Amino acid sequence: MIVVLKGGSGKGEIEKVKSIAESMGLKTNVSQGRERTVIGIIGDGRYEAKERFESLSCVEKVIRVLKPYKLVSKEFHAEDTVVDVDGIPVGDGFFTVMAGPCSVESEEQIHRIAAFLSGLGVKILRGGAFKPRTSPYSFQGLGERGLKYLRDAAESHGMKVVTEVMNIQAIELVSEYAHILQVGTRNMQNFPLLKALGSTNKPILLKRGFMSTIEEMLLAAEYIATSGNKNIILCERGIRTFETMTRNTLDLSAVPLVRELSHLPICVDLSHSTGRREIIPPLAKAALVAGAHGIMVEVHPIPEKALSDGRQSMDFTQFESMMESLRKIAAVEGAKLPEGAVVQ
Amino acid sequence: MIVVLKGGSGKGEIEKVKSIAESMGLKTNVSQGRERTVIGIIGDGRYEAKERFESLSCVEKVIRVLKPYKLVSKEFHAEDTVVDVDGIPVGDGFFTVMAGPCSVESEEQIHRIAAFLSGLGVKILRGGAFKPRTSPYSFQGLGERGLKYLRDAAESHGMKVVTEVMNIQAIELVSEYAHILQVGTRNMQNFPLLKALGSTNKPILLKRGFMSTIEEMLLAAEYIATSGNKNIILCERGIRTFETMTRNTLDLSAVPLVRELSHLPICVDLSHSTGRREIIPPLAKAALVAGAHGIMVEVHPIPEKALSDGRQSMDFTQFESMMESLRKIAAVEGAKLPEGAVVQ
Amino acid sequence: MIVVLKGGSGKGEIEKVKSIAESMGLKTNVSQGRERTVIGIIGDGRYEAKERFESLSCVEKVIRVLKPYKLVSKEFHAEDTVVDVDGIPVGDGFFTVMAGPCSVESEEQIHRIAAFLSGLGVKILRGGAFKPRTSPYSFQGLGERGLKYLRDAAESHGMKVVTEVMNIQAIELVSEYAHILQVGTRNMQNFPLLKALGSTNKPILLKRGFMSTIEEMLLAAEYIATSGNKNIILCERGIRTFETMTRNTLDLSAVPLVRELSHLPICVDLSHSTGRREIIPPLAKAALVAGAHGIMVEVHPIPEKALSDGRQSMDFTQFESMMESLRKIAAVEGAKLPEGAVVQ
Amino acid sequence: MIVVLKGGSGKGEIEKVKSIAESMGLKTNVSQGRERTVIGIIGDGRYEAKERFESLSCVEKVIRVLKPYKLVSKEFHAEDTVVDVDGIPVGDGFFTVMAGPCSVESEEQIHRIAAFLSGLGVKILRGGAFKPRTSPYSFQGLGERGLKYLRDAAESHGMKVVTEVMNIQAIELVSEYAHILQVGTRNMQNFPLLKALGSTNKPILLKRGFMSTIEEMLLAAEYIATSGNKNIILCERGIRTFETMTRNTLDLSAVPLVRELSHLPICVDLSHSTGRREIIPPLAKAALVAGAHGIMVEVHPIPEKALSDGRQSMDFTQFESMMESLRKIAAVEGAKLPEGAVVQ
Repeated sequence: MIVVLKGGSGKGEIEKVKSIAESMGLKTNVSQGRERTVIGIIGDGRYEAKERFESLSCVEKVIRVLKPYKLVSKEFHAEDTVVDVDGIPVGDGFFTVMAGPCSVESEEQIHRIAAFLSGLGVKILRGGAFKPRTSPYSFQGLGERGLKYLRDAAESHGMKVVTEVMNIQAIELVSEYAHILQVGTRNMQNFPLLKALGSTNKPILLKRGFMSTIEEMLLAAEYIATSGNKNIILCERGIRTFETMTRNTLDLSAVPLVRELSHLPICVDLSHSTGRREIIPPLAKAALVAGAHGIMVEVHPIPEKALSDGRQSMDFTQFESMMESLRKIAAVEGAKLPEGAVVQ
Repeated sequence: MIVVLKGGSGKGEIEKVKSIAESMGLKTNVSQGRERTVIGIIGDGRYEAKERFESLSCVEKVIRVLKPYKLVSKEFHAEDTVVDVDGIPVGDGFFTVMAGPCSVESEEQIHRIAAFLSGLGVKILRGGAFKPRTSPYSFQGLGERGLKYLRDAAESHGMKVVTEVMNIQAIELVSEYAHILQVGTRNMQNFPLLKALGSTNKPILLKRGFMSTIEEMLLAAEYIATSGNKNIILCERGIRTFETMTRNTLDLSAVPLVRELSHLPICVDLSHSTGRREIIPPLAKAALVAGAHGIMVEVHPIPEKALSDGRQSMDFTQFESMMESLRKIAAVEGAKLPEGAVVQ
Repeated sequence: MIVVLKGGSGKGEIEKVKSIAESMGLKTNVSQGRERTVIGIIGDGRYEAKERFESLSCVEKVIRVLKPYKLVSKEFHAEDTVVDVDGIPVGDGFFTVMAGPCSVESEEQIHRIAAFLSGLGVKILRGGAFKPRTSPYSFQGLGERGLKYLRDAAESHGMKVVTEVMNIQAIELVSEYAHILQVGTRNMQNFPLLKALGSTNKPILLKRGFMSTIEEMLLAAEYIATSGNKNIILCERGIRTFETMTRNTLDLSAVPLVRELSHLPICVDLSHSTGRREIIPPLAKAALVAGAHGIMVEVHPIPEKALSDGRQSMDFTQFESMMESLRKIAAVEGAKLPEGAVVQ
Repeated sequence: MIVVLKGGSGKGEIEKVKSIAESMGLKTNVSQGRERTVIGIIGDGRYEAKERFESLSCVEKVIRVLKPYKLVSKEFHAEDTVVDVDGIPVGDGFFTVMAGPCSVESEEQIHRIAAFLSGLGVKILRGGAFKPRTSPYSFQGLGERGLKYLRDAAESHGMKVVTEVMNIQAIELVSEYAHILQVGTRNMQNFPLLKALGSTNKPILLKRGFMSTIEEMLLAAEYIATSGNKNIILCERGIRTFETMTRNTLDLSAVPLVRELSHLPICVDLSHSTGRREIIPPLAKAALVAGAHGIMVEVHPIPEKALSDGRQSMDFTQFESMMESLRKIAAVEGAKLPEGAVVQ
């Protein structure tokens, strides 16, 4: 950690910083320039120490040198993690397609989708049963009934289930039906939820907060990891910017950056980042070549009749054609698409 | 609601929109220009209807005409709400100062602060017992012990307590100690929590999400209101932007806007919006004259020893001088500062 | 255009809107709902009309139906434009690589780079001679001397030149040396400059403002086009967001969106969008598969000695390996990389 | 400056940084922690040096210690600057109101406005003659004719003129008519224009770029100052964020921050920051108490007939009532409103 003192600081201020550092068992290295004094703080850079120094009125700024996360970092654990989703690998070398409707709407709907997707080799079925909606007047999902339909449909077609868990109380219930527990974008910094998920052994799909930096996403993963669960799949899903033509701004740079900083797999949610189905296919290919370990997309047999997110849901024809073009690119890139898939 | 069809749309597309509208019991009004056809949808603008129309491939965009919130709107309820916090009024005509430390750190600390604040007429004591922290390695609060100290300190000095409730399970516990339940910025769209709080009868302080629009804040309040609790105090606390000199960007325009759109009181959290104690006093005055119903600020006897947020906590001298300047401005503006307050 | 009246508006307000519309030769279509009245304005949607209606105190909002740009839109001109850069095609079917140093630093430097790039088939050489720098104390470029070196180096290796023109006075000078005149991100809304460039016949590379929407970029292109010059190449180069790990946030969704909305070619500047050379290669591939017509990258023989932007400049080895991987992808995608290129 | 080396760096990397530093005449101070090595660079922190170190592949990050601007900083020049606008002081102790229409539309219009404003004590008349407009189809201003009307109207009522200069060629012409040359938000980083204005002796009103940080605004002012002109008035005018309810987000925190960092006066443009006339009066008071040296607002006798920006222009009644409330607040705050003003 580096502490920069305000201009005009003298011995007294330097001593203040030194004594605080010493009280925390940290060493210091003072460097006095003509206009500013800089004090290097050496030792196990505890997070709180930064706040302590920042609160001193003689301090202009404090800069952390070490990364604030550890367990999820590549420095700590060099080998890429492959998360085992009940036999399906997610991570290094694999390109996992997670697809399904925004909301589970009926037994018939989800079975029809599962049949279609599994025919194309898709192994992970997504679908919402409890939906976080901006308005209390919007469709809120089928609840447990939705979970049942989802699991049945998945099992009938040899697929695994990923679905969102919105609060601690729901973990037990959702875990009965889901193979991957999804943390939604609005919950990325729901710390009690992260801790509770950290004490399960289920794979967690952690969506980036639409208002969160990449570093904050890695710190959120660290919350889960420090609580004991390292089966974490990260998911870039777009951030909020001033651009209004897309629902969010897909931050594809996050993919190579996360691969450099962390050993965890990272996927891209194309439906929520774009909000427009017609630009998903080119961006799906972009995600693959940028190094993503997979994508998540919303698919609906008749998007125009979807109870939610129809605007961003692909229909079957679009999805099939996207899978075909992904296979061609994957072949060049050496990425493994879901085993056993057959293009029809 | 207004549906704009893509260029080149014809009778078939118009009929499609009309039949969907009819199936929802809505009327239509078609207006054909040379380059675009626009269809007005008349009737109780249900939120889902928008998504249904948006998902049609012949639709370019859909524009809502009615505001998506109702119970919290001024159109629905013209008279300004004054929330009764166990005898202390918050809202129209009053300017409420909520102050206290970021975290309750010890019994001695919180009593000392309460004594100081109450001496200046402050009636509502804030303090964190369960802290949401970006890093799992940061101080997470004293928990229930912190709540006890906080309530004791408040009662000893005739004050009321506001503190954060981070999840549904904690509502019962926190309610035993707090007079106002605070929803933190990261939980503004934690919909299960909002619904659960809506079924209590405690006043709720709803902080704006740092990446949420004003409309989304009003929709979050609507979640609480539709669940039965109308004792809601809104709180602007800064939004995330590209500017790095402040912790967040205080969006003071939200104050007059919310007063125009809603009957609920709106306060301003100056500590989290700025992150820098030295600019709080001028902005506190700005909040008052902009029409805010109150402010929330972090105060610490020795900010340099605070376990969290020391950088943005005011010390006693600063706070007292801020209160004095607020009183002068309040006198001109006709705003009532806490009753019985005496500048020492 | 659609005019939504405020709640409580009556006949008087409707008549007011109608008479203004009529005074502009526009027709109206009134649609009265229970809570709001909506007036469709039919006719050639002039831009100013929107402001006129918005300024009425009885108006809640005004929504444009037609796109505000015309000449650059695909609706107006369906066929994709291929810009002819002195014999080198940029646009549909081609994938153009524009590369070179951030700043021309010396005759030797730029010749060395041109020799290297042309050997890999790169046909367009970039380089800054007049540099826009945030600080007045930063290196501001070699000026005209830099332009001479740049053109010489390009000609010696059969390449064309793209370089920035920062103001109207410089157009004549820069045009003597450059084949493409670049408008920098800070000048995207420098309207006098856009108009002046519109009256030249040089190809223009228009960079997206880092805080501009896609629609504003298309309107900036419209400025150039209405002044008579349709040889415009658009360039996505990242937008400013709260994320600090990259210099800007690359908005790759802009590529498929612009291809849908406009007939103009669109390239991606990978150096300024990312600011980090190590993530450029995966994102270059992503740009290609997302449908970009080309990329722009900064290359320096010894990035560590670059006078500007060394952090984001690729060295020769990285660049060569990137070109190789682009060729593999291009083969699958059917995109033509620069003719005559030979991978060494 | 502080250079943080990547993990795993050793002697070779340290020597590399040291030798570069030495080649620039800078001293170093090496501090080796267990996981990272930090090198303090001591000496006159030239801006380029930062880029040089950043471009080294062994460097993780470089942090500037000294502020990048000097002439405009309070550290360099402690006393607050009062800019003399042909006899009218702008700066410390004064609260200057600059008002007038968005565009000069006719001789009659601007005279009527000047008569009204001067009657209320307003001394500086604003008005656009050359207008930067997002669309080429929008009203672009009356040009030189507008300047003449503006100056005539000002002189007839003892007022001074502020108007925008959009490019270097226009400086001479605009200077004939204007007492203050305004740099628009889109030109804040038009460096050739800044330099050219720096070699005039006219007061400059520098508007913050809507995509620029406070530090970048101060660096833009530094461009003007280093070219010789220190008569600079800064102007906060809102930044672009995700919030859509206002035209921009007024960043009022910029006011106390700039007052802390710089000796230059800072005003607030309330019309462009909010885009909504109804919230201007409370925010005008907020600007005053936050410490601004003045405000700029758009006023039109009949906003509904304005050729531009009618939505955000105040009418005479609103403006007069705003001035009245400003006077009350100014009396408490000890700020001098324009001399000789009489509330009618």
